[in-house]
Amino acid sequence: MVDKVNVAEKFSRFSDHWSPKIIAELNDFYVKAVKVKGEFVWHHHETEDELFYVVKGRLVIKLREGEITLNPGEFAVIPHLVEHLPVAEEEADVLLLEPKTTTNTGSAEGDRTVANLQRV
Amino acid sequence: MVDKVNVAEKFSRFSDHWSPKIIAELNDFYVKAVKVKGEFVWHHHETEDELFYVVKGRLVIKLREGEITLNPGEFAVIPHLVEHLPVAEEEADVLLLEPKTTTNTGSAEGDRTVANLQRV
Repeated sequence: MVDKVNVAEKFSRFSDHWSPKIIAELNDFYVKAVKVKGEFVWHHHETEDELFYVVKGRLVIKLREGEITLNPGEFAVIPHLVEHLPVAEEEADVLLLEPKTTTNTGSAEGDRTVANLQRV
Repeated sequence: MVDKVNVAEKFSRFSDHWSPKIIAELNDFYVKAVKVKGEFVWHHHETEDELFYVVKGRLVIKLREGEITLNPGEFAVIPHLVEHLPVAEEEADVLLLEPKTTTNTGSAEGDRTVANLQRV
């Protein structure tokens, strides 16, 4: 049977920041839920475009040429190779849509890289 | 520059039913906005999985083995080859996420097939 997903319910299942959880997959893409707070790290993805959709709170995506502020019901697609730095002054709930090969830190692999994604 | 997309604003740009509009693309996927009302046609997609996310209203997806009712903030992924029939008693606003190769009627090509997708 096909299950439905309630997005708010998925976000209620975890509380850690900057650690995306897989909530759905379709073909070569994942849908992930991530709670963000504070500043992440500057990075880009070599081949993967990445969609950020804000469900709750506010997300700022800094780019080398400016910044984008996303409120609930708004999204942006960051094309591959474009450097970006996600920042959230207060905690925000964000859906990510991206190819399965995408890692959270992309080109900036390090302490904040999440290698093995959980499912919630 | 990377643009942000306000989903509600995209839905305000058109009024026809069952005619998905492209609102974003990333790698081999499109994000589409579609207004639905009434019953569509039974169909499946040969290779494409399809995500339905309800923004406004209510969408029922009938399956051969039951049905799923989606309210705002809920989504379902219909795997390829699974027959489905979307139905909305009242008008609903739905986001679709699917590979670029996906047509709206899949296996049931006919009068309701939208061959050339508009962008809004």
